[in-house]
Amino acid sequence: MLVDGKQMRPIWFDADLKIAKVIDQRMLPHQLVVADLNTVDDVIEAIREMFVRGAPLIGATGAFGVYTAVLRDQECNDDRLAAECDRLKAVRPTAVNLAWGVERVLETCMGRDDRDARLAAALAESLAIVEEEAENCRLIGEHGLSLIREISRKKGGKPVNILTHCNAGWLATVEYGTATAPMYTAFDQGIEIHVWVDETRPLNQGARLTAWELGKHGIAHTVITDNAGGHLMQHGMVDLVIVGTDRTTWTGDVANKIGTYLKALAAKDNDIPFYVALPSSTIDWEMDNGVTSIPIEERDPAEISHIQGLDGGGNLVKVLVPPPASPCANHAFDVTPSRLVTGLITERGMCDASREGILTLFPEKR
Amino acid sequence: MLVDGKQMRPIWFDADLKIAKVIDQRMLPHQLVVADLNTVDDVIEAIREMFVRGAPLIGATGAFGVYTAVLRDQECNDDRLAAECDRLKAVRPTAVNLAWGVERVLETCMGRDDRDARLAAALAESLAIVEEEAENCRLIGEHGLSLIREISRKKGGKPVNILTHCNAGWLATVEYGTATAPMYTAFDQGIEIHVWVDETRPLNQGARLTAWELGKHGIAHTVITDNAGGHLMQHGMVDLVIVGTDRTTWTGDVANKIGTYLKALAAKDNDIPFYVALPSSTIDWEMDNGVTSIPIEERDPAEISHIQGLDGGGNLVKVLVPPPASPCANHAFDVTPSRLVTGLITERGMCDASREGILTLFPEKR
Repeated sequence: MLVDGKQMRPIWFDADLKIAKVIDQRMLPHQLVVADLNTVDDVIEAIREMFVRGAPLIGATGAFGVYTAVLRDQECNDDRLAAECDRLKAVRPTAVNLAWGVERVLETCMGRDDRDARLAAALAESLAIVEEEAENCRLIGEHGLSLIREISRKKGGKPVNILTHCNAGWLATVEYGTATAPMYTAFDQGIEIHVWVDETRPLNQGARLTAWELGKHGIAHTVITDNAGGHLMQHGMVDLVIVGTDRTTWTGDVANKIGTYLKALAAKDNDIPFYVALPSSTIDWEMDNGVTSIPIEERDPAEISHIQGLDGGGNLVKVLVPPPASPCANHAFDVTPSRLVTGLITERGMCDASREGILTLFPEKR
Repeated sequence: MLVDGKQMRPIWFDADLKIAKVIDQRMLPHQLVVADLNTVDDVIEAIREMFVRGAPLIGATGAFGVYTAVLRDQECNDDRLAAECDRLKAVRPTAVNLAWGVERVLETCMGRDDRDARLAAALAESLAIVEEEAENCRLIGEHGLSLIREISRKKGGKPVNILTHCNAGWLATVEYGTATAPMYTAFDQGIEIHVWVDETRPLNQGARLTAWELGKHGIAHTVITDNAGGHLMQHGMVDLVIVGTDRTTWTGDVANKIGTYLKALAAKDNDIPFYVALPSSTIDWEMDNGVTSIPIEERDPAEISHIQGLDGGGNLVKVLVPPPASPCANHAFDVTPSRLVTGLITERGMCDASREGILTLFPEKR
């Protein structure tokens, strides 16, 4: 999407240097730092230290990790390549997209003895993954657009107020984002929108990343605390909620950043549509009950106690908020039961958040 | 309550210096700073700059403001005293307790020509207000205790998990607090409890003040983001919610710190009791519909964009989180409709959050 008038993605291939580059998102919004992925260790660091985050982007970065391994191995050794791929997959074992992206590129390389052909195959497959992710998000935007257009029509063209939680934007995917895709599509078509951006504690991905993305693209938005959405909904200031998801069961239960469930409850209580945008790769086709079955990661309590920002001298620092002696607990995700979800927006279209709804769009899973 | 083994209140009279002192709560939890109220201007600064906050404490500080005005006027001039009281009341015109405390002390002073008698009357009335506030909170603790004791009994003595939002603790009152009073009472009686402390963005009164209070008194607690409560409730990790209130309608609608409504929705969705603790001075006897009628203060957006904490060098600093160009909106309170409130805990006992329930405890209002 646009950054200061220039098209940008969070990952791209530099044809001159023959390496992939990523935005180091840890410094956003205060510094736009680009990291070169020269070696497999660079790729591992970028994934482990969360230069990149978001399932589709992690998958694409893993794919380029395989390309990088091929680039650095003059001898086309299959065993060595497989070992490098194992190292890559081990960085975030719960990220299914990582293993998927790595294996897909690995398969196209194995057995190729000609180094140029091997490298070309790895690059082509990595780029294909990137373009597929971008196309999925573009389609989510096309399908979700109708929701926003309809509300805009009902409001006589007055701005449509959309609330979102966390960052399910292009920084988490490759282009458009998931939750943000319908917003970018509507904006680019001239529909007036305004986005309420939940800051999304503890890591503030909303305040730091979503606000930055939207602002750079020129979309009107306002940062609010995670506490504010219910009040805004009670007073008619929210027309639509769209969030992303890390995993959605085929019964329609939605795992997403902690706090999503509270917004879904408020939307239900105030008759406001609550939509979840996702590429179908996020659907878990095995799990029936998301609330009881999806494991919820507990992360470092320091993410709660220490907050990163720019100090008065312009330095990026972390400050301690609670008493040092007080423990913090950092449950990173929650699960919104399907009964609170108005619908899902996928690359194939929209559907109810239910087994029947999902199978209508994905009949091959019957 | 206890601070490092010593009894402490947020306001007290120093008999040697003949002045009141308050904790400057802006520096907590990282620095325990005490401010002397030597002059009326000191009192005004303490209220305006929020050294002190919380309705009962503001009322008590205003009362001591009148005492200070008498102390500094050698001539017992009634007109001058009334003018000083007007200055005091104007600092936070929406704080009903401030005007109430100021006027109550003013009344006992007017017309007294003997300076010693005037000063003694002002001091006695100020101290009476402080003790009444403390006694109200003590009674709230006594009445709320039964809730905690009953859950503890059902759990066979395993710790009772209580969630609270913001700071309705002794730092906001004089002793015990409101929401925290049943917790202190239960703890002091040997009932095992553990408190989930919502950090309470934007000003983090939970992480900064409630966590400090509970920790200093020795009560087990864990700081969580405001996003986490719903997940904890879904998974049986919360037995009871107790919050305070800034204003409760006589029909049972509860205005409190922004985000309270979201916790009440989650409690309802998971069949967890949701109680509101309040001295009856907080009840609005005129208003029928809190959601539509209670005005919600919009505060400085900088409270959202800039977060205060301790940097690596041990300095208290503020850091900027979102992009400087992104607007923030700071709605400071929300209203929880009575249908989500299990009950009220007042100094007279517990009741339903309804007109009938409240009138049962306060029959003189029929």
